[in-house]
Amino acid sequence: MVEIGTLHIFSMTRPIITLTTDFGESDHFVGAMKGVILSIRPQAQIVDISHQIPPFSVPEAGFVIAEAAPWFPKKTIHVVVVDPGVGSARRPILVEAAGQYFLGPDNGVFSMIRARSPRNKVREITNRKWMLPRVSRTFHGRDVFAPAAAHLAGARSAAAAGKLVRDALQLRLALPEQTNKRTWTGAVIRVDHFGNLITNFEAQAFPQIRTSPFEVSIGFEKIHRLALHYAECPPGELFLIEGSSGYFEICLNQGHAARTLGCSTGAPVEITIW
Amino acid sequence: MVEIGTLHIFSMTRPIITLTTDFGESDHFVGAMKGVILSIRPQAQIVDISHQIPPFSVPEAGFVIAEAAPWFPKKTIHVVVVDPGVGSARRPILVEAAGQYFLGPDNGVFSMIRARSPRNKVREITNRKWMLPRVSRTFHGRDVFAPAAAHLAGARSAAAAGKLVRDALQLRLALPEQTNKRTWTGAVIRVDHFGNLITNFEAQAFPQIRTSPFEVSIGFEKIHRLALHYAECPPGELFLIEGSSGYFEICLNQGHAARTLGCSTGAPVEITIW
Amino acid sequence: MVEIGTLHIFSMTRPIITLTTDFGESDHFVGAMKGVILSIRPQAQIVDISHQIPPFSVPEAGFVIAEAAPWFPKKTIHVVVVDPGVGSARRPILVEAAGQYFLGPDNGVFSMIRARSPRNKVREITNRKWMLPRVSRTFHGRDVFAPAAAHLAGARSAAAAGKLVRDALQLRLALPEQTNKRTWTGAVIRVDHFGNLITNFEAQAFPQIRTSPFEVSIGFEKIHRLALHYAECPPGELFLIEGSSGYFEICLNQGHAARTLGCSTGAPVEITIW
Repeated sequence: MVEIGTLHIFSMTRPIITLTTDFGESDHFVGAMKGVILSIRPQAQIVDISHQIPPFSVPEAGFVIAEAAPWFPKKTIHVVVVDPGVGSARRPILVEAAGQYFLGPDNGVFSMIRARSPRNKVREITNRKWMLPRVSRTFHGRDVFAPAAAHLAGARSAAAAGKLVRDALQLRLALPEQTNKRTWTGAVIRVDHFGNLITNFEAQAFPQIRTSPFEVSIGFEKIHRLALHYAECPPGELFLIEGSSGYFEICLNQGHAARTLGCSTGAPVEITIW
Repeated sequence: MVEIGTLHIFSMTRPIITLTTDFGESDHFVGAMKGVILSIRPQAQIVDISHQIPPFSVPEAGFVIAEAAPWFPKKTIHVVVVDPGVGSARRPILVEAAGQYFLGPDNGVFSMIRARSPRNKVREITNRKWMLPRVSRTFHGRDVFAPAAAHLAGARSAAAAGKLVRDALQLRLALPEQTNKRTWTGAVIRVDHFGNLITNFEAQAFPQIRTSPFEVSIGFEKIHRLALHYAECPPGELFLIEGSSGYFEICLNQGHAARTLGCSTGAPVEITIW
Repeated sequence: MVEIGTLHIFSMTRPIITLTTDFGESDHFVGAMKGVILSIRPQAQIVDISHQIPPFSVPEAGFVIAEAAPWFPKKTIHVVVVDPGVGSARRPILVEAAGQYFLGPDNGVFSMIRARSPRNKVREITNRKWMLPRVSRTFHGRDVFAPAAAHLAGARSAAAAGKLVRDALQLRLALPEQTNKRTWTGAVIRVDHFGNLITNFEAQAFPQIRTSPFEVSIGFEKIHRLALHYAECPPGELFLIEGSSGYFEICLNQGHAARTLGCSTGAPVEITIW
C-alpha cells in the first residue's frame, strides 16, 4: 500500500526534460542549462539526446528530435536549442504535439514534428516568470528555454507560457518529386554516425521496390540491391535498406557510404523502378 | 521512520541501466533508446558509459564494459550495443555475471566479462513481450535491447528473458605468450583517450619486473623504466606503468604515446626480464 | 500531506554530483566513476558537465566549472578531474565556496571559483574512509574523488573530509593591464565550440565601450563594432559582443572566429577606447 502510494508520487514528480543542442560538450553551456533546470525543478530527470548537432544546423536538429521524441512517454518536455538567431527578434516558442512538449526558437526546428502531428499547437513563450531574471542576448538556452522547461514541468497548463500563435515558421520539408513515369528525384536528408545516407524516400510510399527491378543513382554510383539488414551484403558493395526511421538509406556494410560516395546532406538521389 | 521507509522504497525502485554503444552522439539513436527505457520503466536511472566505441569494434566495447561494470552496484543492468550483425541470425543475449546483468548481441562482446566470472549464465532473449511490438531489422538497440533491459528491471527473474544457452560466442582473449626463458610477446589491447597503450600483460603476473632489469620493445622503441605515476618521468620519455585496470601501460607524460610510437591496438609488445 | 512529506524527503535525498573531466568518452573512465558514486550513494543524481576538457588543461577546466557551477542549487557537489599530477605528491582537496562543494586535485583548477568567492574554505581530503580500499596511482577520479563526493553527499559536515589548509595552489588569473591612458592589453582565455574567442575583459569594467569609438586588435585584424547579439552582423564581419559569461567575446556570425583569425587561447587582445 505504502509502496504503491509512494511510487505513484514518485513517477508523478519526476518530469522528463530532454536536451538537444549544437553546443558540443567542451564548454559550460550544457552544464549551465542543467543547473538552471535542477535549481527550479530538482526532481527533473534530465536526458541528453544530443549536443553534437552540427553548429547552426536547424534541419538536422529537427530531424534528430523528430526521430527521438516518439519513443518518450507522454508529457515529456523536449528542449531544442540550435539557435543562430539568438537575441534577435525571433520568438521563443512552445509546441504541443502528440502529447509532448517542445521548447525552442521559432526558426523552423520543429517543422518535422509539426508536420507529423497536424493538430499541434504553438505558443509564444512570453511569461517573464518562466525566464531567468536577467536574460542575456546570447544564451537563451540557459536564460529562457531551460527555465521555461523547468517551470512547464510544474505548471498546470502549457497556456501559462503565453498565447497561441498561428504564424510559427514552418520549413518546407523537401519530398521526392516524380520526374517521369518510373523515376523520382529526392535527396539525402542526413548522414548518420556510421556514414549511412538517409534519403527522403519513405519506404512505405514505394512498396513496389521490394518486388521490381530498380536503380538508385547517387554521385557516380548506381545501386540495384535492397538488403534487409546491414550484414547481408559483402563489404564494399553499396546497397539500399529500409532504415529504422522508415526512410530508405544508402549503406555500405561496415564501411562509410557517405565518404565512399563523396556525398553529404542535400545530395540528389534518383530512383527508377521498372 | 517514514523517512527510512521511503528511502528504502526509493532505492528499490530506481534500477540502474547503463548504455555502451558505438552510436556516437550526433544522431537520435541514443535518445530513442533512452525514450524506450523511460516509457517502460520511468523510474530507471539511465547512465551513459560510452557512445564513442569505434564503429563495429566488438573487442573495444567488451573491454570498456568489463572495466566499468565492476564498479557498479549488484543488479545493475548493462546494455551494450556494438552490433555489426544487427538483423542477421545472431541472437540477442542476456548474461548474468558477478551479480549483474548484461544485454547485447551474441557476437562475443561479453567475452571478457564472462572470462572473469566463470560461473556466468547466458540466456537467449526470446520473450516477445520484452521487445517492441515492431522489431526493425536495423536498430535492435531501440527495438530489442532497450525494452528488454527495462522489462528486466521490473522482472522477478532473468529467466523470463528466455532459455539458457551454452554456445554463446566466446572470443579468445589473446594472452601474452612466453617465447623463451626471459621473454614474453603480447599486444596492445587498447589505446586510451590520452594515448596510453594498454597491453595485455597483467601486472600481477609479472611481479619480478618491479625488482629486475627489463626491456619492453614496441615499434622502434625500447623502454626500461617502470614508473609509479604519470608525472614521475620527464616529458618525452616513454615509460611503463601499472595502469588502473591492472595491465601494464606504455605512456608518455603529458604526451600521446600511441601517436609518438605510431602504434595502435594490436601492435605487438615484447617484454624481456633479466 | 503525504505528498508534501514525501517530496521533501525526495529532494533531500537526491544529492546532485556533477562531473567535469578531460577523460573523453571513449574509455571506461567516466563509467567507472559513475559506478563508484552509485555504489556508495544510489540516490545521487549524476550530472555530466563536460568530459571534453582538452587533456591536462587545468585552466580550461577551471573556467568551465566556474561558469557552470553558479547555475546549480546550493549544496551541489562538483567533481573536477583534470589531473596531470595524479599519483604524485599533489593533494586531493575539497573547496567550499558559494554554498557548493568542489572536489579535485590541488593543482589550481579551482582558482577562478575561489577568486570569485573570497570566503571559500579548502580542506585536504585525508579521510581514508572516503576513498576506495585500494587507491591506484593513476586513477584518483575513481579511487579518491568519486567516492569522496559520494560520501560527502551523505555526510553531516564537510569537515569529515580532512583539515583546513591555507596553502592550496592558487593560479594567478591574468587580468587586462592598462598600457596607456586609452589602451588595455588582455588575452583570449578560451575558445568556445562555435569558435568565439572569450577575452579576459569583463564587460562591466568597460562601460564606456558602449558609447565611445573603440578599436580591438587581435591577430592581424582590427574590430570596431559592438553587437548586441550574434545575428546582428553580416556573415564575414568580425565583431565584439558582451558574452553570456560577462566577458567580451570576439565573434563572426555563423563563422568560426578563432579559425578565421588563426588565434587561440592565450592570444593577446588590445583594446583602445577614445
